[in-house]
Amino acid sequence: MIKTDILIIGAGPTGLFAVFEAGLLQLKCHLIDALPQAGGQCSEIYPKKPIYDIPGFPEVLAGDLVNNLMEQIKPFQPGFTLGERANTIEKLEDGTFVVTTNKGTKHNAPVIAIAGGLGSFEPRKPLINNLNAFEDKGVSYFIKDPEVFRDKRVLISGGGDSALDWSIFLADVASEVTLVHRRNEFRGALDSVEKVQTLKNLGRIKLITPAEVVGLKGTDTLEAVVIQKSGDIDEEIIHEVDHFIPLFGLSPKLGPIGDWGLEIEKNAIKVDTFDYQTNIPGIYAIGDVNTYPGKLKLILCGFHEATLMCQSAYQRIFPDKKYVMKYTTVGGVSGFDGSKKEAPKAVVKTII
Amino acid sequence: MIKTDILIIGAGPTGLFAVFEAGLLQLKCHLIDALPQAGGQCSEIYPKKPIYDIPGFPEVLAGDLVNNLMEQIKPFQPGFTLGERANTIEKLEDGTFVVTTNKGTKHNAPVIAIAGGLGSFEPRKPLINNLNAFEDKGVSYFIKDPEVFRDKRVLISGGGDSALDWSIFLADVASEVTLVHRRNEFRGALDSVEKVQTLKNLGRIKLITPAEVVGLKGTDTLEAVVIQKSGDIDEEIIHEVDHFIPLFGLSPKLGPIGDWGLEIEKNAIKVDTFDYQTNIPGIYAIGDVNTYPGKLKLILCGFHEATLMCQSAYQRIFPDKKYVMKYTTVGGVSGFDGSKKEAPKAVVKTII
Repeated sequence: MIKTDILIIGAGPTGLFAVFEAGLLQLKCHLIDALPQAGGQCSEIYPKKPIYDIPGFPEVLAGDLVNNLMEQIKPFQPGFTLGERANTIEKLEDGTFVVTTNKGTKHNAPVIAIAGGLGSFEPRKPLINNLNAFEDKGVSYFIKDPEVFRDKRVLISGGGDSALDWSIFLADVASEVTLVHRRNEFRGALDSVEKVQTLKNLGRIKLITPAEVVGLKGTDTLEAVVIQKSGDIDEEIIHEVDHFIPLFGLSPKLGPIGDWGLEIEKNAIKVDTFDYQTNIPGIYAIGDVNTYPGKLKLILCGFHEATLMCQSAYQRIFPDKKYVMKYTTVGGVSGFDGSKKEAPKAVVKTII
Repeated sequence: MIKTDILIIGAGPTGLFAVFEAGLLQLKCHLIDALPQAGGQCSEIYPKKPIYDIPGFPEVLAGDLVNNLMEQIKPFQPGFTLGERANTIEKLEDGTFVVTTNKGTKHNAPVIAIAGGLGSFEPRKPLINNLNAFEDKGVSYFIKDPEVFRDKRVLISGGGDSALDWSIFLADVASEVTLVHRRNEFRGALDSVEKVQTLKNLGRIKLITPAEVVGLKGTDTLEAVVIQKSGDIDEEIIHEVDHFIPLFGLSPKLGPIGDWGLEIEKNAIKVDTFDYQTNIPGIYAIGDVNTYPGKLKLILCGFHEATLMCQSAYQRIFPDKKYVMKYTTVGGVSGFDGSKKEAPKAVVKTII
């Protein structure tokens, strides 16, 4: 059982920044995210897109914003349960909560902060009869650790940025990369499209278009995919592979959190604006996942909500202590790792 | 009469960021600030201090944060009335407001956003009988344009960072710099104290300590200061100067805004958290100047408040239009100066 002060569900920018604000209050955080890495949409969907409305950044790439936040929270040593979705919640007699993921990992904390964004990102799956049977046995919807594919035969299907970018990346890792797409046209950054063309010309990416994967074969693990090539005469190809990675995008779903007894309005969790607490005391909702009058789904609003949430969480965890806020310009930042950042102190010195 | 959509009182980080959010809604802003430059406390009090709790910045100097914000709002061409304090407000029959400064500059806008921080920074003045008589006639509390002091004889009094830093700066500009302090010990950055010592040794800063300026002399403009040196026998020195700059720090005062009929609680303006509007419709208060249940006086909270305020201001200015928020990652930023920033577009391209 993983124990922490604030269990944060969702490791997007809002969830990450909550770690920092909690850290200033000496509260420890652990984050759960369905995606294989921190950063939420910013990392998974648009890491190379510039954001223009983060205060103080005339322009920042979404991926860089996440890197900056990870650097900012590093002194507070957050824990992560990645690639797992928070499934069930249970309240113990001592008033704390236990959250269990779809893979059975259990987490215990007195405060839950749901920072789930638009929901947990579920991959859009192709319609293939026996797809489920091969999940984690050759079929992956995310690439958590590219080393898994080293010297393997990989088939990616899809026609967008993810399919292009992972084909390029895995061309250096896998023994064979095949890219299947139902059209001849790909949609993505010019740079990526051109790179795939070059790698195709070099024979390092095999392209099968227009075509679709329509079946999977294998006894225990995946051994081959069935590809249907469309054209004048449709033909079926049996293509031997070790891995099949369908990359058809992600669609956010509030998912099991929707059944936790929280008040929901338009697919978002209702909170009050005093401390962004839900109708269940001890469970907060911050960032894009919440709603209140005037709500804007902006990252900068999530930062504010995370900050006020932490103050309330502190009072909940330490009802008898009174926290006096100290500015970081004055008090600096004391990390749980023993690090200390602070402004150079003024000296008092005689000039004669 | 200066006309604008949102008149922002206070050009600190919150006021500056409001310009950006207003700009996204195609609303123009003008800012008034009592200080001679934008940035509020960040520029005036601690430009070289690191701030650690701006989301996405593991560390940022206050002065750099202001520079970044100025860069971010540049496309929206804000107007500035600097070095003047908002004094009076008047509501016209058309529902708009007129705000007049202590120097008589008039501003007209349908929406007022008070982003006044802890108040307008008033200089702490030394107790010298005829001080007022020489204000703007040789006595300055702020340095707006250092060129005013070119080849002049300047006397600075004070023992902190401002006194040290301006003595160093003006040593290169003025014909003579004298620094008077009531103690031999100065309090400031080690670097600054050492630099003043060096310049003193080089004869480029004249030091008179422990001593105080106790009188001013001159017929129309300032001609000399009377310095009382403390020691075994107190002695008085008449020191001829063109300029006397007492730098004894600033103390924030809510000032005339306190008489505008706004509901005040503990020296802050009460607002609701829906849109940070005050009890007077059309007047908003954002950042450290406001208060509401759970309020934290943090820059990052001001950013959130500024953003929600702008949405409400838009509805007030255009009651019949419905604004549909577009993410900057999607819609980019269209400046009033004709500039356009946006993410590189995806291409649709055939790979054969």
